[in-house]
Amino acid sequence: MTSPKVKLEEVLGPVQSDLERMRAIMIEQLTDASASVRDMTDHISRFRGKQLRGALVLLAGEATGNTTDEHPQVAAIVEMIHLATLVHDDVLDGATVRRRVACVNERWDNQVAVLLGDFLYARAFALSTELSSRLASRVLSDTTRRLCVGEIDQSQRRYDFEMPQETYEAIAGAKTATLYAAACELGARYPGGNEETGRELRALGWELGLSFQIIDDCLDVTGTEEAVGKSVGNDVEDGKVTLPILHVYGRADEATRAAIRDAYTAPGVEGRAARLREVADLAPGVEYALGRAHELIESARRRVGALAPSPARSALDALTSFVLERNW
Amino acid sequence: MTSPKVKLEEVLGPVQSDLERMRAIMIEQLTDASASVRDMTDHISRFRGKQLRGALVLLAGEATGNTTDEHPQVAAIVEMIHLATLVHDDVLDGATVRRRVACVNERWDNQVAVLLGDFLYARAFALSTELSSRLASRVLSDTTRRLCVGEIDQSQRRYDFEMPQETYEAIAGAKTATLYAAACELGARYPGGNEETGRELRALGWELGLSFQIIDDCLDVTGTEEAVGKSVGNDVEDGKVTLPILHVYGRADEATRAAIRDAYTAPGVEGRAARLREVADLAPGVEYALGRAHELIESARRRVGALAPSPARSALDALTSFVLERNW
Repeated sequence: MTSPKVKLEEVLGPVQSDLERMRAIMIEQLTDASASVRDMTDHISRFRGKQLRGALVLLAGEATGNTTDEHPQVAAIVEMIHLATLVHDDVLDGATVRRRVACVNERWDNQVAVLLGDFLYARAFALSTELSSRLASRVLSDTTRRLCVGEIDQSQRRYDFEMPQETYEAIAGAKTATLYAAACELGARYPGGNEETGRELRALGWELGLSFQIIDDCLDVTGTEEAVGKSVGNDVEDGKVTLPILHVYGRADEATRAAIRDAYTAPGVEGRAARLREVADLAPGVEYALGRAHELIESARRRVGALAPSPARSALDALTSFVLERNW
Repeated sequence: MTSPKVKLEEVLGPVQSDLERMRAIMIEQLTDASASVRDMTDHISRFRGKQLRGALVLLAGEATGNTTDEHPQVAAIVEMIHLATLVHDDVLDGATVRRRVACVNERWDNQVAVLLGDFLYARAFALSTELSSRLASRVLSDTTRRLCVGEIDQSQRRYDFEMPQETYEAIAGAKTATLYAAACELGARYPGGNEETGRELRALGWELGLSFQIIDDCLDVTGTEEAVGKSVGNDVEDGKVTLPILHVYGRADEATRAAIRDAYTAPGVEGRAARLREVADLAPGVEYALGRAHELIESARRRVGALAPSPARSALDALTSFVLERNW
């Protein structure tokens, strides 16, 4: 049996050489003249991770017949923005392990994690201003703004067990799907034309990203740090009420609702995620959330199916399955 | 006797109407569709402050005969980047009062302060991508990177009492002077030409910004919260060894050096800045640092003097005096 990680690399075969170029650009960009900064960027480059967003820029380009020499740069910028959000997320979430490597805020401190995230954003924008077209600067600065608004809205909705599913999806979409959408749109459109195809690929990216976030939220309540490769149970600790919990809470009797609220908020509870699993059967909520993710992926696959057949189209199709099946 | 604030407004007379346009653009940009974000940006817009950096874009433009309809937008972008750094600085410094208004991290929490700073950076970059020339995007994304590197380097130099003055100046320059330099350069150059004038104004901005930072560092050890309008004594609490302290430490006997180190680091000291003033006479250090600021301002004034006479040139000249004389 092969691990999903190995299979992902196979799937990305059609854009392998451009992915290598993207990685080389990132390494170059993350190398700064300041030794302190270099020490930190060396550290975070070990996160690497799935690089799905960068891969989507390249695959969306290939699958729509829109490839340029600058696509790997665009992909690198997208990944650098993602890296910046990860570094800041870790400050926000108080996480200590990401992809089995200590987080920046654990290794150094929160101060430096904030600054390093800012550095990564600035580097990404600076690189985008060197491209021949301004489209990436425009799409990605707007995307970054949406990301931040999604995170701010989420923080204001903590402990909101009555949130409608649409609100959850709007927030999850803004904080995650919007960068997937931008990656796919830029792949299909950069440096400019192809607006119609851009919109279609943008919609595909949105569905993929939203289902990715829903599955992330499920893994946070059901997964283990060992399997997922990052801290789990953070959402409950941070008061984030995600789709599986919203579903369970909405259908629970008053006693169970009170117990769920207590698992999130009662003082002195150690391991709130474990407590939550004790007081409520989360399985129906997870099943419901996975069903919604499945629905989104089905829609994304129909959009993929409408593209002309190519190795990149097959890869996009396989990638959508990965998002659904991953447990990491 | 008029307050320095009133006099500053008089000095900025030649660019008053463009400053109003800049402020209107900022208000428009900081208004977001999300109610949570709006609530926060309403709050931070009360900081307002001196808006020296935005004013410098406009004055440098006027004084070099380089004015465009887009200068107020460029000025607004510069101020928004500055606002983002303030919001993140407050997280970093643990400050609770800025310009007599509670900081974002106090009113909400650190999470939200990080996100709001990110939002401001993103908004600023997004606005820059809408300008007719890419120069502002290029200069300001690079400037933001330098700012972050300066802050990171500073955080790695905490409690370094042996730091050479050049290192202090390189760090203070990167974290502060670089945005003053960019403001002046963009004023003189935007949308593109005037490279020689741009370099000269950039040098002027650098000197102005560095002396501003040196005076800020002096006020942090000698000023009161009431007079300065923001928390003081933070540098000592945060382990930042600034120019007046470096000077005193470098000339102190071993017993005084040990007492200075203790004021910064001994556990349980309440009010480290007050303790520092007890164990060492800081006056010669402050005098030395102000002398250095004076030197920089003299050089800046010579550059101002080389420009053709105009109301804006007079305003620039008066502004340099303000930086030196301010106690706020």
